[in-house]
Amino acid sequence: MSKLLAVGTVAYDAIETPFGKTDKILGGSGTFVGLAASQFGVKTGVVSVVGGDFLPSYIDMMNNKGINTDGIEVVKEGKTFFWSGKYHNDMNSRDTLITELNVLEHFTPVVPTEFKDAGIVMLGNLHPLTQASVLDQMTERPKLVVLDTMNFWMDIALDDLHTVLKRVDVITINDEEARQLSGEYSLVNAAKKIHEMGPKYVVIKKGEHGALLFNEGKMFFAPALPLAEVFDPTGAGDTFAGGFCGYLAKTEDISFENMKNGIIYGSNLASFCVEKFGTQRMEELTKDEVQARLQAFKELTQFDIELS
Amino acid sequence: MSKLLAVGTVAYDAIETPFGKTDKILGGSGTFVGLAASQFGVKTGVVSVVGGDFLPSYIDMMNNKGINTDGIEVVKEGKTFFWSGKYHNDMNSRDTLITELNVLEHFTPVVPTEFKDAGIVMLGNLHPLTQASVLDQMTERPKLVVLDTMNFWMDIALDDLHTVLKRVDVITINDEEARQLSGEYSLVNAAKKIHEMGPKYVVIKKGEHGALLFNEGKMFFAPALPLAEVFDPTGAGDTFAGGFCGYLAKTEDISFENMKNGIIYGSNLASFCVEKFGTQRMEELTKDEVQARLQAFKELTQFDIELS
Repeated sequence: MSKLLAVGTVAYDAIETPFGKTDKILGGSGTFVGLAASQFGVKTGVVSVVGGDFLPSYIDMMNNKGINTDGIEVVKEGKTFFWSGKYHNDMNSRDTLITELNVLEHFTPVVPTEFKDAGIVMLGNLHPLTQASVLDQMTERPKLVVLDTMNFWMDIALDDLHTVLKRVDVITINDEEARQLSGEYSLVNAAKKIHEMGPKYVVIKKGEHGALLFNEGKMFFAPALPLAEVFDPTGAGDTFAGGFCGYLAKTEDISFENMKNGIIYGSNLASFCVEKFGTQRMEELTKDEVQARLQAFKELTQFDIELS
Repeated sequence: MSKLLAVGTVAYDAIETPFGKTDKILGGSGTFVGLAASQFGVKTGVVSVVGGDFLPSYIDMMNNKGINTDGIEVVKEGKTFFWSGKYHNDMNSRDTLITELNVLEHFTPVVPTEFKDAGIVMLGNLHPLTQASVLDQMTERPKLVVLDTMNFWMDIALDDLHTVLKRVDVITINDEEARQLSGEYSLVNAAKKIHEMGPKYVVIKKGEHGALLFNEGKMFFAPALPLAEVFDPTGAGDTFAGGFCGYLAKTEDISFENMKNGIIYGSNLASFCVEKFGTQRMEELTKDEVQARLQAFKELTQFDIELS
């Protein structure tokens, strides 16, 4: 089993969906990645920053899930990163109502000594220079570096993004971002161009339309599980990435064939994440539920045709 | 092997895509369904109507593919149904430039005696009363009735559509149409409501995002094959339906498990259809190419996780 280091936000979210509305609840990419990875019992360290207003009970919950929080800096005089958003009726689009960077504005990640030799590093959606600074702190080259990014960094820090991409094995990105980064409309061609930027593996997230994994001409596709109700999509993408990394850390096998399984586990966990507000569903999720849903994914996708 | 009866349009299309432009070429739902089904060597009869301007060489081509055209009425003094459209750069949306119904306006399908006992009937996208009139001509209840429809008929003939749906086993419909017909946004819930209208099987086509098969709580998903270039999407949905019906007719097995294979073959054939203008790719397609692509679909979707 490899150690997993996840750098990302630990945040407060206030969410409104057609199903209801929350006050400030626990959120953040680092949180969702950590909770997803905890399903595999891997040693996961989260590196992030919070303010003095952050509830210690959230830290306790993470620790109880086996998540190492030594890398979560607490800035006593500061306030925790806060995001507020409202989802439209189709749940595929949302408006950001409030973004308060707060302590995130001057965030300098410090990797705890215990995780400087982590085999797998997940670089959450932060400034590319911040992502690079995490890699600089590792005592050896991790077996696998996974990077998430978004159009915002392409707009304001494209050169820095290209520099850090050269040190990355797997990029996770949504379809629109893949098109922006590559200048190609076809996702097959987009993946090819992004390969040339560094990452040998390109994961393109298409939300309710599933996810594609590309690796030098090979392709794999995992659908999202069709659900009667999507309650709150917040964190689904990070949960997907956390499931992917957690499974690879557990199995210590970073072959393309095993990454297929990682993509399926990522989709599996993401399908739970959206069933309740925020982290609630992921906090109560059991291994039996995950295994039962794996069976549902098999029934959804596996077929048996004899080649004639 | 069952006989397959396909009712639909045999048409002239003029198509413009970012890759080029055609004069009047062969098109129509009946044509694409027939060409797809011909890959399985099943006895397929197409019922349609054309004008005196329709090239006999097109009829010859269909006959050479083993398609029975006795049910294609030729109205000598009339003109063939003509559709002209222009695809946008993303290939997912298009503008209809011209629709000339011509001989289709007074089309009364006549089922040839040889196909009145067909095991599988594919009712192409026509007025629901026209679709019903085909079922009325069958000497026995077909083993499987498949119906395609669109929002246009929901707008102008919803009651007639509901009446014919009671006699249908499988409906093929796109995601927006499924939402309109059911009043449900979630496709899971939409399928449930459409089940209650008659069809035990609901196939929801999502274009480049694949297709879903629902059957009383069971689900199966087939992705579209990600392609570097989509040259012309015209006919892809009909080719999908023709592949599905053709495979079921060949195997004479209408179980849910075998329908999964039919959905995969439908996606397989549709992925060829879009590679060239009109029917061109389907006319030259070989069995070996189809088998090789089946292997590509397996690699794209099949995984091997041990349940733990």
